[in-house]
Amino acid sequence: MSQFDNVSVVKAANIYFDGKVTSRTVIFADGTRKTLGIMLPGEYEFGTGQPELMEILAGELTVQLPGSQDWISISGTGEFTVPGDSKFKLKIAQTTDYVCSYL
Amino acid sequence: MSQFDNVSVVKAANIYFDGKVTSRTVIFADGTRKTLGIMLPGEYEFGTGQPELMEILAGELTVQLPGSQDWISISGTGEFTVPGDSKFKLKIAQTTDYVCSYL
Repeated sequence: MSQFDNVSVVKAANIYFDGKVTSRTVIFADGTRKTLGIMLPGEYEFGTGQPELMEILAGELTVQLPGSQDWISISGTGEFTVPGDSKFKLKIAQTTDYVCSYL
Repeated sequence: MSQFDNVSVVKAANIYFDGKVTSRTVIFADGTRKTLGIMLPGEYEFGTGQPELMEILAGELTVQLPGSQDWISISGTGEFTVPGDSKFKLKIAQTTDYVCSYL
């Protein structure tokens, strides 16, 4: 699926880390939301509210999930889930395009 | 209008200038397109195909339109149009959130 159909898109961007991480919120007919985002190279820590599914559309990064000492590497496409009310770390090596779904 | 309703959104981002300028394509029911984009601080030259309306949602920049020696300053919100098949220059001082419509 290369596009989301019959959705609403919030015009204003979500801007984090001085613009190095930005996203747009997409609202589906059933009221659920996803964000489409871009992360520029850097190191970031994010906190979750709801559990999240992060789908990497393009890019190169490593991720450290909560409670883990290990770094998982993704180059190209990939995905991982993050528990709710937790923190995870990302090291972005190449500009990364992603979709975040709230589970 | 804080959001676009009943639209499609292309998942893959449009990425320019090493990720310092990125956008998402929104397709309307009548087939017209807009892009929602982010520009990080820097100096950029863009070329147009169709004429464009650039609406600045937030940010701080100056723009030099084709054929002009002058720089127009926008801080906060603003808009300008660019003729088709032309080039224009932007100096982005603060991360800038925009909507581009093709006229």
